Amino acid sequence: MHLPAFSDIEDAYVRIAPYIHTTPVLTNSAINKITGAEIFFKCENFQKVGAFKFRGACNAVFSLSDANASKGVGTHSSGNHAAALALAAKLRGIHAYIVMPGNSPQIKKNAVGSYGGIITFCEPTLAARETTLKKVLFESGAIMVHPYNQKEVIAGQGTCALELMQQQNNLDCIVTPVGGGGLLSGSSITARYLNPNIEIIGAEPQGADDAYQSFKSKKLIPSQNPNTIADGLLTSLGSLTFEIISKNVDTIITTPDSSTINAMRLIWERMKIIVEPSSAVALAIILDNKANFKNKKVGVILSGGNVDLNSLPFG
Amino acid sequence: MHLPAFSDIEDAYVRIAPYIHTTPVLTNSAINKITGAEIFFKCENFQKVGAFKFRGACNAVFSLSDANASKGVGTHSSGNHAAALALAAKLRGIHAYIVMPGNSPQIKKNAVGSYGGIITFCEPTLAARETTLKKVLFESGAIMVHPYNQKEVIAGQGTCALELMQQQNNLDCIVTPVGGGGLLSGSSITARYLNPNIEIIGAEPQGADDAYQSFKSKKLIPSQNPNTIADGLLTSLGSLTFEIISKNVDTIITTPDSSTINAMRLIWERMKIIVEPSSAVALAIILDNKANFKNKKVGVILSGGNVDLNSLPFG
Repeated sequence: MHLPAFSDIEDAYVRIAPYIHTTPVLTNSAINKITGAEIFFKCENFQKVGAFKFRGACNAVFSLSDANASKGVGTHSSGNHAAALALAAKLRGIHAYIVMPGNSPQIKKNAVGSYGGIITFCEPTLAARETTLKKVLFESGAIMVHPYNQKEVIAGQGTCALELMQQQNNLDCIVTPVGGGGLLSGSSITARYLNPNIEIIGAEPQGADDAYQSFKSKKLIPSQNPNTIADGLLTSLGSLTFEIISKNVDTIITTPDSSTINAMRLIWERMKIIVEPSSAVALAIILDNKANFKNKKVGVILSGGNVDLNSLPFG
Repeated sequence: MHLPAFSDIEDAYVRIAPYIHTTPVLTNSAINKITGAEIFFKCENFQKVGAFKFRGACNAVFSLSDANASKGVGTHSSGNHAAALALAAKLRGIHAYIVMPGNSPQIKKNAVGSYGGIITFCEPTLAARETTLKKVLFESGAIMVHPYNQKEVIAGQGTCALELMQQQNNLDCIVTPVGGGGLLSGSSITARYLNPNIEIIGAEPQGADDAYQSFKSKKLIPSQNPNTIADGLLTSLGSLTFEIISKNVDTIITTPDSSTINAMRLIWERMKIIVEPSSAVALAIILDNKANFKNKKVGVILSGGNVDLNSLPFG
């Protein structure tokens, strides 16, 4: 079976439990009042490295045999996956080779470096990233860990919804942001298994709506020049995540960046927690479509909290 | 007895328990590593109205007899106390008359208004605030609730340390910010009663160091033209808070705003929670004086999380 099953997610949860934080589920009466829904926020912004990505990276790294793990792991990423893989590798005591564009924000370089990741810089194009990674993997013998289109990674991301549904077992609906689709596909396997009737919704920025387009047209359509403030959601679905999402998800709803910024401000001001724009997309689609969520118990995965405090979208 | 005793704090805790949030105590391994201390952050930024002030206001409002409460309560404040009193009054079903300067930030006016507070605007001087409040109290018959220099308010603020020390019962040291001194004095009664050997420290901005000056010289010296980014700590100690602090507190340490901003950034970036500058002052003095806190278990009260996202001190 090439797609992960619920049992893979259960196995992943046992595997990564010693390393991850069990993140809290928060509610906020002001936001419930504004939306008319009862929202349960699963706070992966409090996860290690500040994002759910640590779950998938950790599962991939700890799924490797000792022999396979010994030469390390590698990926290309300028975002949360890079930091997540670096920390997971460090915890296993192996090397992590991270290819990232030279123009990545210093804060991202520092994060990867602080977890002991071995960084190779490249030109800021997808072609350069892939070529450079291929070279690094060839020279090191390290094993590639994809940011989302990989069974172990998807299974790891699916542990977040598992935890959420254990913490709050009567959800009518679950909403996650969708970029490459690792979180949404993993969540959908968990949620559909635990509750065949639950509504599973992907939230996507209008400026990077490949998942919406692909879901609607039933064929994989990668983004062309995506542009959104939700920098974690610029990537396009992969073959695996598209297949899982097509099977399990009820709908994908898009939202403009203005709604995302508004939702992000609401979370910061009312909940006093820091989430990145990619996380706020999930609340944004609820605010945009209140009638659809009225009086429902909605699980929202706040995917991460890594923002550059020097360039915030407020004011 | 004109000063609150520990039993008043216990009574306050029973009185306000139905209305307040039990706020979490968070730890952060990165901040522990940086400071060399083991810090337990009591997150009053998650308290109702986003600040510990709700505890004291709530205790004052619910301590009133029905006859006294019937004509409402009043105060002058442009900060968290105003919002706290408005909400406490709303929960008791009575009026709250809030005198605030006309030039207060819109966000503060909105907060008070959203809790049903009846606002009277005045000129932005202490004299105008006091005169206007006197007039409002005279006309309404409402009862004054002082932001800090009042027994019930101090007892209410003391419940925060009580909760913290129940959640984490082996602290070597407790650090709170000090402005008017309600939080520090209340905390000091609780902490000294529960552990005669605990170290109790006040953290104060250098630009508003009246508590430091008063504590050192053993006489009450109000601030002259205080100036600090920690806008919740501009006020000077009152007669009651000064007396309690003189008796219980071990030391008051001041810090420049640059350290406060640095500490605030650290909390935002590492803990992914929003605290206001006044809260960050407590971590700032630990960062400034690492040797004093090395290997100690330190309770830090994060006093509030109300910031104007349009004017942040980063960047």
